[in-house]
Amino acid sequence: MAEPKKIIIDTDPGIDDAMAIFLALRSPEVNVIGLTTIYGNVYTTLATRNALHLLEVAGRTDIPVAEGSHVSYVKATKLRVADFVHGVDGLGNQNFPQPKSKPIEKSAAEYLVEQARLYPGEITLVALGPLTNIALAIELDPAFTKNIGQIVLLGGAFLVNGNVNPASEANIFGDPEAADIVFTCGADVLAIGLNVTHQVILTDHDRDILAESDGIFAKYLSKILEFYFSYHRDAYNMKGVYLHDPTTILAAVNPSLMTYTEGVVRVQTTGITRGLSLFFNKQKRFNEETEWCNKPTVKVAVTVDAPEVVKLVMERLMY
Amino acid sequence: MAEPKKIIIDTDPGIDDAMAIFLALRSPEVNVIGLTTIYGNVYTTLATRNALHLLEVAGRTDIPVAEGSHVSYVKATKLRVADFVHGVDGLGNQNFPQPKSKPIEKSAAEYLVEQARLYPGEITLVALGPLTNIALAIELDPAFTKNIGQIVLLGGAFLVNGNVNPASEANIFGDPEAADIVFTCGADVLAIGLNVTHQVILTDHDRDILAESDGIFAKYLSKILEFYFSYHRDAYNMKGVYLHDPTTILAAVNPSLMTYTEGVVRVQTTGITRGLSLFFNKQKRFNEETEWCNKPTVKVAVTVDAPEVVKLVMERLMY
Repeated sequence: MAEPKKIIIDTDPGIDDAMAIFLALRSPEVNVIGLTTIYGNVYTTLATRNALHLLEVAGRTDIPVAEGSHVSYVKATKLRVADFVHGVDGLGNQNFPQPKSKPIEKSAAEYLVEQARLYPGEITLVALGPLTNIALAIELDPAFTKNIGQIVLLGGAFLVNGNVNPASEANIFGDPEAADIVFTCGADVLAIGLNVTHQVILTDHDRDILAESDGIFAKYLSKILEFYFSYHRDAYNMKGVYLHDPTTILAAVNPSLMTYTEGVVRVQTTGITRGLSLFFNKQKRFNEETEWCNKPTVKVAVTVDAPEVVKLVMERLMY
Repeated sequence: MAEPKKIIIDTDPGIDDAMAIFLALRSPEVNVIGLTTIYGNVYTTLATRNALHLLEVAGRTDIPVAEGSHVSYVKATKLRVADFVHGVDGLGNQNFPQPKSKPIEKSAAEYLVEQARLYPGEITLVALGPLTNIALAIELDPAFTKNIGQIVLLGGAFLVNGNVNPASEANIFGDPEAADIVFTCGADVLAIGLNVTHQVILTDHDRDILAESDGIFAKYLSKILEFYFSYHRDAYNMKGVYLHDPTTILAAVNPSLMTYTEGVVRVQTTGITRGLSLFFNKQKRFNEETEWCNKPTVKVAVTVDAPEVVKLVMERLMY
């Protein structure tokens, strides 16, 4: 069997981030070598606290946590956090104890640059929040885009409406300038957008099954998921939740769960569609030079084997 | 049989505009009561000249032509004309003689306001170019949105790439500010976007059939279409042309040729996606107030019976 793929998870836990981190820890195909934190579902300080807490729950305090940026790439921008989706504590308002462990001294961007240099071409960076840390890593070390093996990111709404507003998906909306840098940086980027993650639904029934398990992850998650289910009922009128982050982890674990298209993605940074991610497949020859010309392409997920993704999530989080 | 529906065509002829105007004149379901002109495929002066010329070709100089705006709604904007699609003269570089007839004294906006007042609720305005004249009519008379029966417009690229650049369709790109006014004006608006018109293709073979006809429209069109076919070969690598304007006319003639969805459309006016039309179906409840909230809805075409549209175009333009 091949050596497990080294992955670093950039995360803003976040209820589905917790699922995704646990899922990665239970996936023998990957070896989680570190976590980096970012604002998004919560502010960065709390994201770091929650990342440390989740590793304690998992008994994996050997995994380092590097704290990420507290502000977006363009620093004057007001941050938006989705506490109404994940609870004020980011984990379903469960009043978990403070973690005993601490983040490492290095910032997320410094840690990413260091690890990519240490294992050139070997690391898959799975980005589950706004892309600030990755843009900062690129700024810190132009060779980062060459050294990093792949960036698998949850972000964008390709040919579908967004979830922050009709134009924008939350992670891209969280830092549109950083997202445009990452999409056009020339690294091997794979984007998993709402067009795919909205096909992957954990039902009420699935959660009931998790709740009946004695498994440590299953028990933990079935509790924190309540807030997340409640949000989905209110916002989407649905009995179930979207598995955004777990789906993205599984795209790194097993890319054959999805199909992909390739093209240039640019991000709108102003006006009513700020945060919109727009894909162009390079099929048409335009009369004028466009902002999508002469830019590196990325891969964008198009279809997903949703039943298989849900099955893997359930199996791996059950015990 | 019901009385024919009164229509006014706002047009920038334009090769497929010529097809659309002839098609309307040959459709017993509608009565073309006037043309208004606008820049887009050509500048407005030439659009007016071509509109008059086409009515002379058709022997219908009884139909008034009102000249539209020479500048976009926000007057500092640089106009873009698509002479590379339609020829420098807008009609395939055929050196047609100057028309003898003249436009009426009233501007397009004044004429639209007057006619809508005269026949409240009865007129279908078919807009085939940038939406400047319609925005000006709304500005001139706030009751215009109530008086006009329906606005059927060719514009937007809903969940597909644009044709000016990856974000924008040509008519919306031509005047994004005007388009946003029209989409949110509260009138009965039906938008036919590239997602629909790119399904409706006249083939090389179809053109050969037209060329063999002795019919006056068939002969005329098979000549001017050459330039349009050449553009499509270069830009799309296809042997055929998109029937944007004829499809839009037929949506007014027989709405059952398409299916529609309803929601709010807003237009981005700044940045790299200036001219993007973004549809929201109001299915999700967002946490924050969005720019799509509390706006009137419009109908957007989703599917089209493309073979039937091509068949109608061929039948009606053949003789």
